[in-house]
This record gives sequence, structure tokens and C-alpha cells, in this order.
Amino acid sequence: QDTTAGKSKAAVCSACHGAEGISVLPDYPNLAGQKQKYLELSIKAYRDGGRKHAVMSPMAAGLSDADILDIAAYFAALPAQSPAK
Amino acid sequence: QDTTAGKSKAAVCSACHGAEGISVLPDYPNLAGQKQKYLELSIKAYRDGGRKHAVMSPMAAGLSDADILDIAAYFAALPAQSPAK
Repeated sequence: QDTTAGKSKAAVCSACHGAEGISVLPDYPNLAGQKQKYLELSIKAYRDGGRKHAVMSPMAAGLSDADILDIAAYFAALPAQSPAK
Repeated sequence: QDTTAGKSKAAVCSACHGAEGISVLPDYPNLAGQKQKYLELSIKAYRDGGRKHAVMSPMAAGLSDADILDIAAYFAALPAQSPAK
């Protein structure tokens, strides 16, 4: 996977999940520092229909496996934010 | 919500999601520092069938709304772990 390519491919994600992977909306999860494999499985589940969400399903529909790996690697590598910060 | 009650109710979660909400398995998400509302919505989705998972669906089946709020508050308040640590 390629975190630099992932950053570019993840630009659209930032509207909800924040520029640095810390969500700007309480209903939506932080992605920064999340397990890379879990992120990959989640995006694939949205793409392939195992998980359904009005926003995420269409977002994921056009992604290749390589896109998903890059995006997952990018968010997993971002620093997680503790509540105290 | 009651984070102390949540800690007690969340004891069973630690087998997969870690004693401090940092997952011990790559397929499973970290919960520490996650958005409280997202955690609540996720557990309710497992309980109510909107999300399905072989482990999480039965785990959530017996939880009340109050249980879910307590558990979500507990994990949201734990410090998130950055990849660099």
C-alpha cells in the first residue's frame, strides 16, 4: 500500500472524517490511528454490500482493492487524538 | 451515561477490543477515544440488525439502551493510541 497515494485518494473522505482523520460529526467515526485491516474490511464491506450507509456505500462503490489498501494505510498511519487533547 | 458502570459492562469487550480499548486483533477496531455517538449507533445497529457480525450481533443482543450509552461513554473517554507510541 501507498500512504501518499492514499492521502490523495482520501481527500473526499475529509468532508466527514476530518482533514486528519478526526471526524467533524458525532455520528461518524474517527479514522486516525484505526487498525489498517479493519479500515480495509470496512470500506470493502461498504463497497460489496455487507455494510450499507447512505453516504459510504456510494463513496466506496468505485474503489479498487488497491485504492482501499492505500486509503486504509493512510488513515491507520495518522496520529489518533485522545479526548484530553 | 455512567462511565464507571460502562467499564463494568464493557469487561466482555476486552477479549477482542483490548483492556484499554486498543484492539488486540487487526480485523477489529480500536474503540478508545472513538466518537461516543458513533459507538452508540454502532452497538445499536448490531443489536437491532442493521449491522451483522458473528461475534458482535450476539454480544449486543441483550443490551439495553442504557447499557449501550454507558459502554459508549466508557470507550469514548479512554485515551486513543497513536501509531507512534
